[in-house]
Amino acid sequence: MTRNGVTAPKGFLATGIKAGIKKGKKKELALIYSELPCALAGVTTQNKVVAAPIILARETITRGRGQAIIINSGNANAGTGQDGLKRAAQARKALAKELNLAEEDVVVASTGIIGVPWPSEKIIKVFPKLIKNLSIRGGLAAAQAILTTDLFTKQIAIPIRELKATIGGMAKGSGMIHPNMATMLAFLTTDLAIDPIALQRALWEVVELTFNMISVDGDTSTNDMVMIMANGAKQNKVIRVGTRAYELFKESLLKACNFLAQAIIKDGEGAKKIFEVQVKGAAHKLDAKKVAKTIITSPLIKTAIAGGDNNWGRVVAAVGRSGAMVNPEKIKVEMKGLKTKSVKVMVNLNIGNAEAKAWGCDLTNGYIKINTHYN
Amino acid sequence: MTRNGVTAPKGFLATGIKAGIKKGKKKELALIYSELPCALAGVTTQNKVVAAPIILARETITRGRGQAIIINSGNANAGTGQDGLKRAAQARKALAKELNLAEEDVVVASTGIIGVPWPSEKIIKVFPKLIKNLSIRGGLAAAQAILTTDLFTKQIAIPIRELKATIGGMAKGSGMIHPNMATMLAFLTTDLAIDPIALQRALWEVVELTFNMISVDGDTSTNDMVMIMANGAKQNKVIRVGTRAYELFKESLLKACNFLAQAIIKDGEGAKKIFEVQVKGAAHKLDAKKVAKTIITSPLIKTAIAGGDNNWGRVVAAVGRSGAMVNPEKIKVEMKGLKTKSVKVMVNLNIGNAEAKAWGCDLTNGYIKINTHYN
Repeated sequence: MTRNGVTAPKGFLATGIKAGIKKGKKKELALIYSELPCALAGVTTQNKVVAAPIILARETITRGRGQAIIINSGNANAGTGQDGLKRAAQARKALAKELNLAEEDVVVASTGIIGVPWPSEKIIKVFPKLIKNLSIRGGLAAAQAILTTDLFTKQIAIPIRELKATIGGMAKGSGMIHPNMATMLAFLTTDLAIDPIALQRALWEVVELTFNMISVDGDTSTNDMVMIMANGAKQNKVIRVGTRAYELFKESLLKACNFLAQAIIKDGEGAKKIFEVQVKGAAHKLDAKKVAKTIITSPLIKTAIAGGDNNWGRVVAAVGRSGAMVNPEKIKVEMKGLKTKSVKVMVNLNIGNAEAKAWGCDLTNGYIKINTHYN
Repeated sequence: MTRNGVTAPKGFLATGIKAGIKKGKKKELALIYSELPCALAGVTTQNKVVAAPIILARETITRGRGQAIIINSGNANAGTGQDGLKRAAQARKALAKELNLAEEDVVVASTGIIGVPWPSEKIIKVFPKLIKNLSIRGGLAAAQAILTTDLFTKQIAIPIRELKATIGGMAKGSGMIHPNMATMLAFLTTDLAIDPIALQRALWEVVELTFNMISVDGDTSTNDMVMIMANGAKQNKVIRVGTRAYELFKESLLKACNFLAQAIIKDGEGAKKIFEVQVKGAAHKLDAKKVAKTIITSPLIKTAIAGGDNNWGRVVAAVGRSGAMVNPEKIKVEMKGLKTKSVKVMVNLNIGNAEAKAWGCDLTNGYIKINTHYN
């Protein structure tokens, strides 16, 4: 296990502490802080019902700058209306003051119970302790504090050797305890200097290929968020779109996001197997993606994979209803590794050159148990 | 239980027999036959990958006339290519000859295993016996012969008193045994005389409100089919669109299809509860339908209902990702009867006047068991 995810790049500190939001001993408050101002980019949920922290985070993303991200588990601050927005803004203001930052330099992220007032008092009260605990070894504690029903922490550190820099990251997957919703959160850091426009573009492109191509159960949360901060501690020439450095950075960002996305799938509720879907020969990129996503969200395919059965019929049926252009006579399906924990589903539509990949997990009694008997 | 579904209207005979397609003692071949030529209408799967019988059935639907429907369970004749089409056409031709009908007057429908050659020889061999067994009391036997993993037969007979006529029907729900796919089949009969255009229009409108608004697991089969034959045995004036008789007929057709659709949901794989979703206050009809269908297919909501939990948060999240126009502040959700077997989920978007209803079933270990361990 990587000991340090978000604190692996130079100039980033982090921590995770207990703030009394949940019962029990688990940490529920994490802080990522950069010693230097950062270019910041982010991608948030496409759900039209969004939690209060998403509304505030979008202000920071639009601005393209930021320096601190505070994340709590245990309460999603969703379905909390104007009161929730006010409380999130209060916490953001209080933390900005303690860190001597502008309010918009701080991102507040939340996951957990919905419809319950967000305990801003409890959270604000521990800010001095949270800041005091910040450390260059705090990545693991932060990764622990953002978990809900996840079974393991998800951290990554990728060296970009040619640029003598590092990308770090942490994530949490989908988990819900009464009456929570699945939330996918991922936070990345890098010590490179990069233009905010280039950073946003790279993040979008990479998220489209990674986090947006995984599914545990097809339900999109109100709180989903992927954020990256780039602090320039390596004092490189600022990276812009169209340069070799941009491509190198994006390649490593892809590796990092791919690792975190896969970790989320592996830790999907009740999941015992993961499967990769490779679609080839589609007429258009969008068609290839439609097919791949229809397959990873099909309960019939997910249960067939749980059972280790080469049920190509269910795959062909999913291809047919995906909405993609197909010639039924030309579809080829192959399933590999069905008796292992890592299955491959290969689909060739044989009518074009477009491709896509997606990742899913099997559907087991574990999922039913977690989501039915969560009281 | 209704003893006669499709044979309740005057002039319809039916039967169900064992043809040796499946092992065991269950019947797997059904025939519905009208003594008089019929107006015929049908709705088939929207999946782009369709089974051979669907290709042939579409010829008959386009024509608007027909007189016999033969249905086998145990083999879907899907994924069988040109050979499957040839075999289905052979059977259709042979049955038409035995019944002294034009080939296109016969519809062949199939459900069961995919990718296995369709046993046309076995099926054609029993045609004399099948025809000999036809009876005005054969509705039940036919309803039994079309079942796969269904737990009970689904039959209905609705008197249309004002027109002194009857609508009869039978259906099968989603069930799959290695390596089958869920298939929804429904067959309706009436002794009214009705213009084929009016019949097709009424069927489309009613299917949109009933069979198209239910979901067991969101997977659309390659074999789905709803058919109706109207033989005019009651010698009424031919019913056309825009008349009072048309409205009376459509009203009863709606009742019949609604009953059969609900029966399919009640018999959904592993289902212990059914739930009705009522969406109100949408800006457009299509939006109301999107919201209703997103809710009935959400694994998170289906498991919450299994657990009897008032998890309005999951409902609001589903509304948000449905693609419908919403104002998050105005969405109202209410869940009723959570401790009973028949749950109601009421959603008011409070931004317009459009409404929709849909029906789903809970997601339980039973579903996982049936679809994982079917070998």
